[in-house]
Amino acid sequence: MIDALISRIDALDAPIVVGLDPTPEMIPQRIFAASQQGCPLKSMSAALLTFNREIIDAVYDLVPMVKPQIAMYERYGADGILAYIETIAYAKAKGLIVIADIKRGDIASTAEAYSSHIGGVEINGQRHDPWQSDFVTLNPYLGYDSIKPFADICAENNKGMFVLVKTSNKSSGDLQDLQLSNGMKVYEHMADLVSDWGRAFVGKHSYSKIGAVVGATFPEQGRELRKRMPHTFFLVPGYGAQGGAGKDLRGFFDAENKGCIVNSSRGIIAAWQKDSRFGEGNVQDAAREAVITMKKDLQL
Amino acid sequence: MIDALISRIDALDAPIVVGLDPTPEMIPQRIFAASQQGCPLKSMSAALLTFNREIIDAVYDLVPMVKPQIAMYERYGADGILAYIETIAYAKAKGLIVIADIKRGDIASTAEAYSSHIGGVEINGQRHDPWQSDFVTLNPYLGYDSIKPFADICAENNKGMFVLVKTSNKSSGDLQDLQLSNGMKVYEHMADLVSDWGRAFVGKHSYSKIGAVVGATFPEQGRELRKRMPHTFFLVPGYGAQGGAGKDLRGFFDAENKGCIVNSSRGIIAAWQKDSRFGEGNVQDAAREAVITMKKDLQL
Repeated sequence: MIDALISRIDALDAPIVVGLDPTPEMIPQRIFAASQQGCPLKSMSAALLTFNREIIDAVYDLVPMVKPQIAMYERYGADGILAYIETIAYAKAKGLIVIADIKRGDIASTAEAYSSHIGGVEINGQRHDPWQSDFVTLNPYLGYDSIKPFADICAENNKGMFVLVKTSNKSSGDLQDLQLSNGMKVYEHMADLVSDWGRAFVGKHSYSKIGAVVGATFPEQGRELRKRMPHTFFLVPGYGAQGGAGKDLRGFFDAENKGCIVNSSRGIIAAWQKDSRFGEGNVQDAAREAVITMKKDLQL
Repeated sequence: MIDALISRIDALDAPIVVGLDPTPEMIPQRIFAASQQGCPLKSMSAALLTFNREIIDAVYDLVPMVKPQIAMYERYGADGILAYIETIAYAKAKGLIVIADIKRGDIASTAEAYSSHIGGVEINGQRHDPWQSDFVTLNPYLGYDSIKPFADICAENNKGMFVLVKTSNKSSGDLQDLQLSNGMKVYEHMADLVSDWGRAFVGKHSYSKIGAVVGATFPEQGRELRKRMPHTFFLVPGYGAQGGAGKDLRGFFDAENKGCIVNSSRGIIAAWQKDSRFGEGNVQDAAREAVITMKKDLQL
């Protein structure tokens, strides 16, 4: 799927993934009004799904991929998870590639259970896939045990993953920037591990099915990491709302302007709230314009 | 809730948490036969719930707490999540304290969404709690941003958390054992951070609402960490099936034999498969006997 993703980014000239991380504050009143179902958890979940469908309809021909953040759905319990699953199904039906932003990480037997997110689950000899995702994000605090079940799926299937290396948030340095006795930072050591883990999975565009998460808010580290891990594709969060801008991201790309995909969530899905031209709840025109503006900002 | 947990451990003389991490291989055929619902994902989820109810009925008067591992349910999608939620509801109704083993960790706004696991979620000014859990486990790779929303809930409510410090799995050293330039290991640095984060939340038994996960498979590190973080309660996975034994755990406890709770999952819930005395599917007597044996093994 990393090969398909890179081809699709090229075809659209859009290294952009739309983060489907809606909060209630981003959802127009008309959607809430049309989503009432008695139970507040069900009503909210229905509103999230309707909102996401509008966003997907508006951007599916402009971008290769969407990234639902599962926490935004999980917060509402099983109903929220259902809205998350239906969001993915809708995105897949529109031809989008889907990265499940789950950041899971656990011991081997548990990681195997989590790997259902890209591999489905076998019941009585039949495989069932409740999630239908193409990629996942993973947390490496527990080491390779938490990655291996996903790597095993990648070996046999057209799937992929992005492992956290240097995250975009303010406190990412609490652990990731610690200086090791060999002179490296923790995130540099993680970069080397992720690079090694991915070596067996390099595709036709010379990037591996095992990618890395590298935050837009740390441009210098992004540039260094691009050189350090030439066959590792980057998922870059933190653009826009979190502070990163296009000009800062040159170093995250390789010499052929490939090698990364930049996520924007609020900047696209909540764009209707930033500009009075779009009026009450014109989610779609605003999202489309935000994607086009972002495309230009990333033409480096 | 950390105070209530410690009091309950004392009253039962059982520093034991039963891990509700069922895999299909652990579930007796009679339960599968009684759980058929057409859709395999629904049937499997129904079987997990029935199995958990039997386990809970068998052990609720012997132990203070259960720990469902969400991955084992999440693998079956929204139906699985519903079985997870109903498992927690059943355990709470039986008076058990519940720790949600979710190991989540994300940037601030996303961590806030995940904090629904102990804080519920506000919809139109009303708080709804789809999960009903008392504690969560958290992953610290992103630093304090991923902990803060949970700490904020602990400040106002009777809830708690356990942050991964030194995990029980084989590859836990890939990251956690790296040597820092100041002479500490990464997990020791994490231990100091967790200790600092918990300082404001120390309860009447002199342990904090912010605890640490320290694997039974590393007894030496457990002993060191007990000294290093005297006000941090430990959740200790890796006992039994993963290799740890009671005699190795002395150092995880303080001078008064307090300060930690030991998890056993397979050793209790799959005990019926290890001993032919229990016959086809006598889950309950086997689980009860396994808890009593574990209690003795932990009387140090």
